[in-house]
Amino acid sequence: MPARFEGERESVERRLDQLCGTYLSGLPTGIADAIRYGLKSPGKRIRPLLLLYAFRAVGGKGDATLLGCGPEIIHAYSLLHDDLPCMDDDDVRRGRPTVHKVYGSRTAIIAGVAMIPIAALVVRDAARGMRLKQEVGLKLLQTLLEAGGVSGMIGGQSRDLAGEGRSLSLGDREEIHRAKTGALIVASLVMGALAAGASLAQVTAVERYGRAVGLAFQIMDDVLDVTSTTTELGKTTGRDVALGKNSFPALLGVDGAQARARALIHDGLHALAEQKLLTQELSQVANFMVTRTS
Amino acid sequence: MPARFEGERESVERRLDQLCGTYLSGLPTGIADAIRYGLKSPGKRIRPLLLLYAFRAVGGKGDATLLGCGPEIIHAYSLLHDDLPCMDDDDVRRGRPTVHKVYGSRTAIIAGVAMIPIAALVVRDAARGMRLKQEVGLKLLQTLLEAGGVSGMIGGQSRDLAGEGRSLSLGDREEIHRAKTGALIVASLVMGALAAGASLAQVTAVERYGRAVGLAFQIMDDVLDVTSTTTELGKTTGRDVALGKNSFPALLGVDGAQARARALIHDGLHALAEQKLLTQELSQVANFMVTRTS
Repeated sequence: MPARFEGERESVERRLDQLCGTYLSGLPTGIADAIRYGLKSPGKRIRPLLLLYAFRAVGGKGDATLLGCGPEIIHAYSLLHDDLPCMDDDDVRRGRPTVHKVYGSRTAIIAGVAMIPIAALVVRDAARGMRLKQEVGLKLLQTLLEAGGVSGMIGGQSRDLAGEGRSLSLGDREEIHRAKTGALIVASLVMGALAAGASLAQVTAVERYGRAVGLAFQIMDDVLDVTSTTTELGKTTGRDVALGKNSFPALLGVDGAQARARALIHDGLHALAEQKLLTQELSQVANFMVTRTS
Repeated sequence: MPARFEGERESVERRLDQLCGTYLSGLPTGIADAIRYGLKSPGKRIRPLLLLYAFRAVGGKGDATLLGCGPEIIHAYSLLHDDLPCMDDDDVRRGRPTVHKVYGSRTAIIAGVAMIPIAALVVRDAARGMRLKQEVGLKLLQTLLEAGGVSGMIGGQSRDLAGEGRSLSLGDREEIHRAKTGALIVASLVMGALAAGASLAQVTAVERYGRAVGLAFQIMDDVLDVTSTTTELGKTTGRDVALGKNSFPALLGVDGAQARARALIHDGLHALAEQKLLTQELSQVANFMVTRTS
């Protein structure tokens, strides 16, 4: 993670700590602990940062950190369920035992579903706190719910699982990832832009940037699954091949996959530049996506 | 089910069929089939009916059937997850094999989480279709999300599971059920009232009616678990005792539990009458709750 993002990543961490205090009260300890553990996994917090940077690129004033926690909570719940024994059956995530290893599958499932309405209520409360119009609040909420739903993340996850062990074309593979991870990344950027009062052309530009960056991120995830060790990456590597997943390196080779990721970033930055939204932070975070090693 | 509700129950069924066509497109067949199977389980559709009747009692015009499907989808997802092997491990629900028995646990989990954003988007679309103000749409959405979330259904479900095999007081037991099943029943009524433009006093009255009816419904569920056979009830009976759950008949006896349910219904109807909201259908549906045999 580039040093310049570190301060902001820490603000996101603090906000996540605070909201656990607010939104988990009344839950039995086991479930609340599992949610906190899943949420406080040492992640990159790419989604809140992208939301924040889109917000600022469009000229938003004020603090959008809490709003950024909305998509991060949805992302965290999806990891929690992905790791379940009946899904990808992963024991290690970001260098720690996964939630179901620590708290059991039953608690992990309930903790995961509990995080969906929490994310929605966080967005509602963030919109109120930022004194956004109710119609903007409603739009933010539906952007998040659509991205986390059947037309986005869940649809992609379902098609990914349905495709395991089958041979998929590059087009199919990209389509799955645009939905599975891309939709929520795009939604984060769109939410940041909307909260700052973006025009339709500006929203379209951050959408194009988000689609490019999101896919590049996933391609590099697949590349790192092949080229890294479990220790470097903090999660079990080589799993895509073991599970018969049609990863990008398998389809394009490692060099080909990296070249595709770089081309995508180039297109994404171009879309922003056309709308005069190409800030240094949005440029740096995109480049980080294709140069990261974990 | 009283005959007079049957026509409306069928309208709800038709709406559920239609919305499967709209909201499940793009999902792989397995997940879409599991959602449809879970949603089209032959239920009483108490939540949509209560929403409809509260809407009409307050003087709402137009069709609130789609709006009523919102809480029903949340209810259906909760049953789907409750039946999982790592939760209540039930094989039979309403006379049919449960979703995980037919489609497997992995598909059942994904189908369940997919239903949460679907329910939210159905509410948004229903509010638009009814030409409600955006602030009312937002209020409807948050009423549903809160009832289905940590402060409602999920909180109650978690505390119920945490309490298994432990001795609970009557107060604890009621508190769990107010959250686990009561919150969504109250939310259905409140959503109907809000969509019809209810005053605060009217919302409070339907809330009181909902809390009473919801708890009475759950008490009778426990009673039927003791007094019915698996064939009559369409699900495995005697499970509460087997699982060491602190059911109402265990705490009050069967007669005592039934008397408590009747007293609750009386209080609920009184709250409606005070606000001149005591329509024949709200009265009949409440009485049905305590006289039903399945």
